[in-house]
Formats: sequence, structure tokens, C-alpha cells
Amino acid sequence: MASLRLLLPIAAILLLLLSLISFHSDPVLQCSDPPPILSRTPSHPLDPLTFDEIAAIRSILVSYPPFAAPNQFPAIHSISLDEPQKLIVLRWRPGYPLPPRRAIVTAYSPPGHTHLVSIDLISGRVLHHSTPSGFPFLTTDDMRRAIAAALNDPSFLQSLNTRGLSPSDVNCTPLAPGWFGPEEDHRRLIKVQCFAAAPNFYLRPIEGLTAIVDVDAALVIRISDSGPGIPISAGEDTDYRYSTQRNKPQSFANPINPVSLEQVAGPSYVIENGHVIKWAGWEFHLKPDARAGSVVSRARLRDPESGEWRSVMYQGFASELFVPYMDPSEGWYFKTYLDSGEYGFGLSSMPLVRLNDCPRDAHYMDAVFAGTDGSPFVRPDLICIFERYDGDVAWRHAETLLADADIREARPKITLVVRTAASVGNYDYIVDWEFQTDGIIKVKVSLSGMLLVKGTTYQNLSQVPKGEDLHGTLVTDNIIGVVHDHFLSFYMDMDIDGPDNSFAKLHMIKQETSPGESPRKSYMKVIRSIAKTEKDAQVKLSLYDPYEFHIINPSRTSGVGNPSGYKLVPSATAASLLDLDDPPQRRGAFTNNQIWVTPYNKSEQWAGGLFVYQGHGDDTLATWSDRDRGIKNTDIVLWYTLGFHHIPCQEDYPIMPTVSSSFELKPVNFFRRNPILRASPYTKDDLPVCSAMASI
Amino acid sequence: MASLRLLLPIAAILLLLLSLISFHSDPVLQCSDPPPILSRTPSHPLDPLTFDEIAAIRSILVSYPPFAAPNQFPAIHSISLDEPQKLIVLRWRPGYPLPPRRAIVTAYSPPGHTHLVSIDLISGRVLHHSTPSGFPFLTTDDMRRAIAAALNDPSFLQSLNTRGLSPSDVNCTPLAPGWFGPEEDHRRLIKVQCFAAAPNFYLRPIEGLTAIVDVDAALVIRISDSGPGIPISAGEDTDYRYSTQRNKPQSFANPINPVSLEQVAGPSYVIENGHVIKWAGWEFHLKPDARAGSVVSRARLRDPESGEWRSVMYQGFASELFVPYMDPSEGWYFKTYLDSGEYGFGLSSMPLVRLNDCPRDAHYMDAVFAGTDGSPFVRPDLICIFERYDGDVAWRHAETLLADADIREARPKITLVVRTAASVGNYDYIVDWEFQTDGIIKVKVSLSGMLLVKGTTYQNLSQVPKGEDLHGTLVTDNIIGVVHDHFLSFYMDMDIDGPDNSFAKLHMIKQETSPGESPRKSYMKVIRSIAKTEKDAQVKLSLYDPYEFHIINPSRTSGVGNPSGYKLVPSATAASLLDLDDPPQRRGAFTNNQIWVTPYNKSEQWAGGLFVYQGHGDDTLATWSDRDRGIKNTDIVLWYTLGFHHIPCQEDYPIMPTVSSSFELKPVNFFRRNPILRASPYTKDDLPVCSAMASI
Repeated sequence: MASLRLLLPIAAILLLLLSLISFHSDPVLQCSDPPPILSRTPSHPLDPLTFDEIAAIRSILVSYPPFAAPNQFPAIHSISLDEPQKLIVLRWRPGYPLPPRRAIVTAYSPPGHTHLVSIDLISGRVLHHSTPSGFPFLTTDDMRRAIAAALNDPSFLQSLNTRGLSPSDVNCTPLAPGWFGPEEDHRRLIKVQCFAAAPNFYLRPIEGLTAIVDVDAALVIRISDSGPGIPISAGEDTDYRYSTQRNKPQSFANPINPVSLEQVAGPSYVIENGHVIKWAGWEFHLKPDARAGSVVSRARLRDPESGEWRSVMYQGFASELFVPYMDPSEGWYFKTYLDSGEYGFGLSSMPLVRLNDCPRDAHYMDAVFAGTDGSPFVRPDLICIFERYDGDVAWRHAETLLADADIREARPKITLVVRTAASVGNYDYIVDWEFQTDGIIKVKVSLSGMLLVKGTTYQNLSQVPKGEDLHGTLVTDNIIGVVHDHFLSFYMDMDIDGPDNSFAKLHMIKQETSPGESPRKSYMKVIRSIAKTEKDAQVKLSLYDPYEFHIINPSRTSGVGNPSGYKLVPSATAASLLDLDDPPQRRGAFTNNQIWVTPYNKSEQWAGGLFVYQGHGDDTLATWSDRDRGIKNTDIVLWYTLGFHHIPCQEDYPIMPTVSSSFELKPVNFFRRNPILRASPYTKDDLPVCSAMASI
Repeated sequence: MASLRLLLPIAAILLLLLSLISFHSDPVLQCSDPPPILSRTPSHPLDPLTFDEIAAIRSILVSYPPFAAPNQFPAIHSISLDEPQKLIVLRWRPGYPLPPRRAIVTAYSPPGHTHLVSIDLISGRVLHHSTPSGFPFLTTDDMRRAIAAALNDPSFLQSLNTRGLSPSDVNCTPLAPGWFGPEEDHRRLIKVQCFAAAPNFYLRPIEGLTAIVDVDAALVIRISDSGPGIPISAGEDTDYRYSTQRNKPQSFANPINPVSLEQVAGPSYVIENGHVIKWAGWEFHLKPDARAGSVVSRARLRDPESGEWRSVMYQGFASELFVPYMDPSEGWYFKTYLDSGEYGFGLSSMPLVRLNDCPRDAHYMDAVFAGTDGSPFVRPDLICIFERYDGDVAWRHAETLLADADIREARPKITLVVRTAASVGNYDYIVDWEFQTDGIIKVKVSLSGMLLVKGTTYQNLSQVPKGEDLHGTLVTDNIIGVVHDHFLSFYMDMDIDGPDNSFAKLHMIKQETSPGESPRKSYMKVIRSIAKTEKDAQVKLSLYDPYEFHIINPSRTSGVGNPSGYKLVPSATAASLLDLDDPPQRRGAFTNNQIWVTPYNKSEQWAGGLFVYQGHGDDTLATWSDRDRGIKNTDIVLWYTLGFHHIPCQEDYPIMPTVSSSFELKPVNFFRRNPILRASPYTKDDLPVCSAMASI
């Protein structure tokens, strides 16, 4: 029984193949009328690898001599486009032949051999093969094997049994172990913790029980069990599915009639060849990515006055996450996730829920990823794209001083949203790239999903001895929502009117007036400086020491002499309070500052390093930046880390209402003037006539 | 000619009567079918004074002996409801008789006599009459008279003439002088500055020319002219009206098809007796206010599980603004506006632009204010109310660990927005109170309108001598957008499950682990404390010294022992950098901290003081709070100040794309669990069928 159940409490965060089967019929085997994604050919240098290309790469790998011998084929962790050099992409124009299509394959042969294989698709040849140190993220197979090892381990079974549980009663999770010292080196580890089975098992922890598993050996190294006396929550009424909740007694809140976004004249965006989005003045390339979720490239704006296409950002994406939990005890200290590098933000993104994750008229973009055996598979509906109107105003003025003129002007604000939603285990991260007609790119992150909770004997705070730190909030009987942080670091290769840019800081300071100068004692003065090297651009935000942060093109000035630029506009955020030498903080050192600027380097994309799993933090944005390279009037990359402190509350249980924060990239002296001065207001004739379905 | 033109460049920010005529036919004289607002009778203790009540008050004042003698009738600055004592309001229930209706009249008799007159509407008697020191905000007549004085002054005319201008060529603005020392005491002053006439005259300053006018004497005290050599901008293509812009050449941006919010089953809110809004679990009272714009009162939530109506906030409104410009020179140093107290945020709110300031199905609420002679008038469409859906998600989760279950659940996020938009001269402030189904109240402020600009001889930055500070950005030829701040202070009388509340601070600190305690060196620990007195609650936010701020009811705890509460969640904000002893900062001292908590006191509502005009800053939130009264487990008021630093840019010209920030009041252990667990997802059948007008 145990061995059968090994396969059921599914081991993987990623569930590559199974999720495919769940949501689509297997497109490879069964589709007589293949959806376009399967027959697509690349038409842009940045287009992701197609289904056929991944299949071709697999064929190349299978016959590649080092992998061709029996049992020598490695586990494939990722296959992705090796993007052409930036200059080549910048010079390319639609209609030109594509630059050579190349792929980077990350693979692993146990024990301990990570492969990076560069493949040329035209020649079918392996161009380069290295075996770097470091581990790629685990595959579904790795995770499933590790969980199976735990559930086959006699002492783990004994611990479950002590609690009256058998393997068939539990759902187990594959937890990245972080890295806490050299004894964890040289073998791939995973920590397996289990929950009593339920649709929302996350809220039924089997507290204190951890199996530390050697993934390659598929062997439990150690069992840690500190919680046999801690009851397992019944998880009463925690199933959040509508199919369950609809049968519950009605809530006392009055129901709300549906409100929908309607656009009867159809969308205003055009999607060319699957990946190039054109909307209002914007054009950009958009693709799914197994690690980053989505990647926006070559974002350009058409100048509304001159018609010139002007570059804003070469590439932008969520580079890495850092999610440290704040409980130092045995079962919790290691929970310090780097979700993108450890699990893959794109791989963790399930198909979006139509009508609810995105409005009805959204366009959906599918992804093609590689499975553990190197075969391509389709993850449908990974990205949605829609136009938003929320009743907000793009600009307005009502004139009160001119008696003879009734001047009241307002313009509706309509934006274009690009959305992904990653489910990294219990947590959900919605990432929006929102393009505005006024030139702003707004990046918004919304958190939902389930708390990571800790079992406890307490049912009421009055039972907690004075001085005992719960490391969280008692959110219901026997359940603590553990305090934690979320950090998301965004990579933004800004190319304002071309690649060579500078980072200008506008420091706002208190300036005292000289005696007799003014009735004012003080005013706020702006002092502008250009960052020369990387350390000049390591920024910790401070409310009482404020700056504006501009990426400018010093070679392009407006008619009045201002350099063309975009500014980074932070909003609510949080900073990591961990010790800089704490192992998790070293791995998440990209959170040591909120802002960094680095010279463009194709190999510096992942803020926590290329290989994050059990990484030591010696290849992070912080280590690159500390080289203190020059960043003045050169091709630079802007990094911003958005943070959340999360002290859980009862309302987060059993599923969290979304919490959001955002930042903006905003044109500053980029346009000669307000680029939406000529926007039209809505009139009655612009709006549709609607009726409920029922009346049709 | 000059004397005729005196009446045309309209003097007042407020334009009370004229705006009425512009937007509505005069409802007093001409309406044979009066709209409901004119026949309304109060039905709630907090309902604003009705048209008839204000008319009755005027009759009482006219026959009140001190005002009845010839030429003794004062100028009426405001007539507003004197709200009943809070306890009386809390005890009142629908169907009960209303508590006595009383009004507070603010009036002024030159020179120097401010009146506060309390009137009982039932008896028709004056209950109390005091003559406090301090000046109320200027009336339209005051402003018009002051501008006329400037335009009749020979030396002012000479200064205009030097620039080739006559009074018929200019539009003049009535600028509050701030307060800069005792020589400005004891007489009402105004500073008049003019602009070359245009639909968007703000961008054509007659730089450096100021008339300092004694309002009561209607005499120019002094002319200051530092700018005769500064050219007046032609203001080319600055007319933002669609009627003008539609005839300009098309922009290169692609047009956007309209997107609209449609709710075919009708709104889900109910408005009872004009002012009580019920929506989802919420109920609150809403009214326009001449000073605050809008006032939300008695915000309560129905507990979705128990059905109990639970108090959240007794009253909330925008209490005061502070807008200091950062140029210490003669023509600019005094521009340090306290817009609510100096001009009236409600009085400055023109009728909202239907379909564009608010979506098509919005409900509009009219206001009744008093004119300078005490007569009531209607300002239509002062507030709009609408339901919003913007494609965002209320909560979601996609399950990746359960193989046999395709669990992907998401719920659309629908909110209720209450909006006003004040136009204080050049600037527009949109204030939204947004009510969410998850219990959050989000307050969002959006800025638009025109920059306050300074004329300059420079046409290019290259002409500016090194070391010269422009105090702003050259946004176009000869025009500097001057650096400034905006602060809005919000009054929130929180009553979480009743009036007696406490202010809890949850301090997040770095806790180092003991040797051997954990592989972790550190974690973030939460230390909770209750503020005992006001000084414990004077908070400056700091990214690296973070707190959560809870208003809790210590007498009401959940099943697991957490006190019922709401937390204040700041977002992007800015702090004033001015010297604490600078006269403007003393008047705007409510910005010295972002957060304050005071014991409830009916007389402490206006953060800059009751009488702000030429006030010295001796009656502000800062002076009240420094009394350091007890605030533990008592009726307390939470104050939050939202700030913006604004370094202008070219894109802000000739009209600014909106810039927004917000904060939230969020339930924290107020509900037993997520209150929207049972929310329904959208299905296809919920959404309407729409067609364009044209196809009908």
C-alpha cells in the first residue's frame, strides 16, 4: 500500500507532465488538429524555443556521444533559448533572416555532475559543454524520488505511525534546504515534510517531522522529529474550492452583481507571430520562461509627436525571489527560499483561471518547456494579456478661475496588463507588467495562496508562557502563521534611446536660507549626480533622505536641454533585516539594497546566481556589484527589489486575500511634453449596450 | 475697459455662485421641478444641512440682533452641520427621532472680527456666539475684491504696462500669503499674481509681479516686481480641451478602443435617504463637506459568519493639505498652501466629468453649500460612487502538489469607490475611498492638473550659469516647473468594535540567535507594544526600522485570543524636509510625523487648525499631540499623512498625467478567517452580452 501511495501524494512542485495531462490532452500524441503553438516556427530572434526545436535538441542530445552510452543520458533540468548577442538583436529587423538559433541545456548526471551544453540548431552540433559546480533546480523526478525515499524510510514511517498516520494519509512537500555550511556540500539534499491529506493540506502540518534526503542516492540521511506531541489540525472548512464552498450556508454579506470589462470594438492590441505585442504607442516582445515566468524584451515607444520608435527597455523580468521564514527552530530555520532558482517561476505557473485570473477578453499565451527526459511539453495559458479600465483618470482639470468658460476635462485611463501567476507550493505570486499610454511601465506583484503554518499545542494566546516567542500569529486553534518576508528582484536592462545610459541620482536635501535671503528658513533643494561606478548605485531607500533615480541617455537631450530618461518610482517595500553574514542572507544578498545598477553582462541575469540550489551566495548580484565596475554612459542594467514583511493574521486563513505592491518605470523628460494630451474623452456613443445572458 | 475687465478674470478659486450658474440653471429661482436635493429633509443625525435648513439659518442670522443692523451682516464663510455628540449618534437608530439639528456658522466682519455662531434649528435661536482670533478662508467676494484692487492699482498697472499688458489681457489668482511674522498679523492679506490670459493661463506667468493686498481695505499695500525682463511664454498648444486638441494633427500612437465597466444586473449598492450606502458587507454614511470634500462616517461591516454589524470607523476625511513650493525668492517663498483650510477642499470641487472622472454607471451626489450672503446653493455631482472591477484577483491558488486534483481557484476583485476631485487653482486632487469585500478601506490620492510654473529667461539648460539653482526643471522654453511637495493628512476616528481602542505597534527587529541555537545567525522578531500616550504614537516611518501599526479593541479578542483590529498600511509616501522652525513647517506641523494618534476630541478635526488662513501654527495636530494625553483603551483618532515630492518633468506640461499614492486600513484579526472565502467565481453566464451603439 505504501509503495502505491508513493506516487499519489505528488512529489513535485512542478508536475510537468502530469499538469499537462490534467489540463490538456497530450498534444504530442493525441492532437489531430494541433494548436498553433505546436506548429509554430520562430520569427523573432528572441522567440522562445518551439516545440519542434526542443524535440530536435533532444534528438541531438540523445546522440551526443557523452550522453549516448547506456544509462548516460542525464536528467534534463532546462532547455532554453541562448539569446543572440544584444547587438545582433538590435540590428535585426522583421524580414531579415533570423540569427542562428542556439539553445542552452542544463542537465545533471548523478552524482554531482552538472552540465551546461550549448547547442546550435542549424548544424545540430554541440558547440560547448561545460561541467560547472553548482546544482540546477530539482526535477519533478528528483522530488518524487526524494519523497518516496522518505515514505519508505522505517524511522520516518515510525514517526508517522506514532501520530496514527500511514503514507496514504499524507501529502508531502519537497523543500529546498537552503545552504548552511560545508557539510551540506557535494551532494544534493532535499527536506521532506508532510501534511495530513486534504484539498488544503498546507493547513494540516505534521509538525516537527523532517526527512533529510540525499536526492541522488534516494536515501534518507536523517530524520528530525521534534513535534510528536503537537496535534494535527483537522483543517475544518479550509477547502477553498467553490465546489465545496457553494454548499456552505450563505454568508451574511450581500452578494455583488458581476461587473465586467467590456470592449465591443475588440482589443486594441495586435500580437504578431505570437510574441510581438503592439498597443497604443507600445511595442514589445513577450515570452514565457521556465525560470522567470515571463520576459518582456525590446520595449519601445512610438513618439507621439515625431513618430520615431524609441527604445525604453531591452529586457525585463522577475530575476529571483527570497522568502525567508523567521523561525530559527530545527523544522523551520532552513525555510529561506529562492523560489525562481530553486523551483522555477515559470515552471511553477499553472494555467491561469479564465474569467477569474484575467478578464473575459484576455488573450492567453502558452508556454513550451522541456520535461526531465528533454521532451517538449505545452503549459497552456501561462500568460494573459488584457486591456484594463478601472474608472481611474489619465489626467484631468476643472477650471475654477475662468468665469466665462466651463472647462472640465478628464480622460479615462486605459492600460495593457501582462500577467503571470506562479504557485510555488503554498504561495501564489501574480506578476503584472502594466503598460500605460503615458509611457509608464508599472510592475505589480500580488501575493495570495496559503500561509506556511506551524502546528502548535496552543489553542489560545492565554496558554502561551510569557516570554515565549511564537515566531508568528496563532491564526486558529493549533496553527501558527509564521512570520516571513517576500522579496522579488527585477532585472531591467534599460536602454533609454539606445544602450548607453547613465544612472542619475537627484538628492533632495534640506537647504537652509542665508540670513536675509528669504522669509523662509529652509527649502528642499535637488542635487543631481551621476553614478560613476556600481557602488555609487547601491541604494538603500530612506524616507528622510529621499532621491529620485533616473536612467538617462546623456547623449540625447530635449530642446531645453534635459537628458531623455526614465525614473524608477518605488512604492511600498520592505528591506531584509537579517544579518549580512547569515547564510540565507548571503544567498539572498541581492536584497542588501533595494536598487543596484550593473554594467550589462549577458551572464549576469539571475540575482541569486545561475545555480541557486544549495548555492553559497558567491555568484549573486551583490558579488557582481562589489566589483565596482564603471556604469557611466554605458550599457547598464537596473535592478529593483520589491519586499513585503508578512506578519500573518486570522484573515490570511485558510487562504489569503491578495496583498499587492508595485513600482514604476516612468518617463522623465523622455517626451517633449505630456504624450497623452490628445487622448479622447469617453462619450456616450463610445460605450456599448449590454444585456444579461439570460435576457437573450 | 479696465474696470469692466475686473469682473472677467475671475477672482475666486471657489466661484460659488457662478459655477452654479454655469453647470445648473439656478435651482432656487428657476426650477419648477426641483431635483430631490432641494426638497430633501434630514433623516440621519449626520446628514448635511439641507437647502431649506441653510435658508432657515440665513433667516435666523438676518434677524439676529448683532447682525441685523444696517451694514452689520457679516460675510458668511461657511454654514455646516454641528454634528451631535458622538454618543448620541452612536445610540441613534433608524426610526428614532433625529437629535436636535444644529449648525455652526463661520462669518467675518471687517476689519478683523471672526464670528463662530452656533444655531439651533428647531428653536431658531442662536445658542452661542464667539469671536475667536484667526481668519476663516476667504470668500469669493474677498478674492474678487482683492484682484480688483490690484488691477486698479496704478503701480501694478504700470508693471503690466511695462510688459505690454493691460488688465484685459490677464487672468489673476488669489494666493494665500502663508504667514511669515507678526507684521502680517491683524489684517487679512492676499497676494495677487497674474498670468497672460489663455484657456490654460497657468503656463503663462507674468513672472515676479505680486500685489500684496489688504483684503478688508481692498487696497494694495505693496507691489513687488522682480521680473520685468522675463518673457511671458506664448503657451503654445497648451489648451488641453478636447474641443481644441481634436483639431490638432493626429498623434502617432494607435488609438484605443473604449473599454467600459458594465454591470447589467445593476449596482449592488443601495443608497438610503441620500447618504447611507450599503454595499456587500459594508454600511456607511457619506456626505459632501465644504472643507473636507467628502466625509465617511459610521463605517460598519457585517460579520459574514455571525451577521453582527461591527464598527470600523466612526469618521474619516481629508483633514488638511500642505503644499510648500521650494523656491525661497520673493515671488515664491510664501507659496506654502494649506489648501483645505485656506480654500476649502469641497468648495474647490467642481462637478465631476461624467463618463470620464467616473465610469458610466456611477451614482452622483450633489452638495448644498452656503454662499457669501448665507444663501444655499447646489454644487452638483460633487461625489461619485461606483463599483470597480479591474481584472485583479481577490484571492487565488493553483495547486501543484496534488496530482489527482485540478485545483485552480481564483476570485474576481470587486470594490466600491467613493470619489471626489478638488481643483485648488492649478492642481487637481482626486480622493478615493475604496471599500473592499475583504474589509479593507483603501484611500487613494491622485494628482493632476497644471504645474505652478515660473517664468525664466532661459530657453535651454546650457544657458544656466554653473551653480545657479533653478529650484525646478526647465520644462519648456522660458518655463520652470518649480519643485514642491504635497501632503494630505487624513483624519480617521477608528472605532474597532466600539469606541475604546488602543494603538499597538509591532516592531520588527533583527534578532541574533544564541550560539548553538540554530544554523541561522538571525531572524526577524516581532515585538508588540501598546502606546500609552500621544508621544508614543508619533511615528516617522523607516524602511530599516519597520513596524506594523494596529488599532485594536483590547476588550474584544478572537477565539484564539488575538485582539480585534485594523492595521494602517502605508504605501509610497514622502516626508517634509523643511526646518521644524520654518514658519510654513510650523503651520504644516501635522507633517512632522506620518502617523499620530490622539484621543477623540470633537474640536480636533482640522490638522492645521480650525482657522488656517494666516495662522501661526499654534493650533495644529502637532500642538495637540504634544500634550501627550493618554491614548490607551480609549476613544482614539488615527492620523496619517500621505506625501509626494514633486520634481517636475517635461511630461507634466501642459497638463499632468495623474500620479497616485495610497494607504490602507486593513482588518487584522478582526475576522475569524478570510471573510471572502465563499465569494463566487465568474462563470460565462455571469457576464453580459454587449454590442456597440452603432450596431443597434
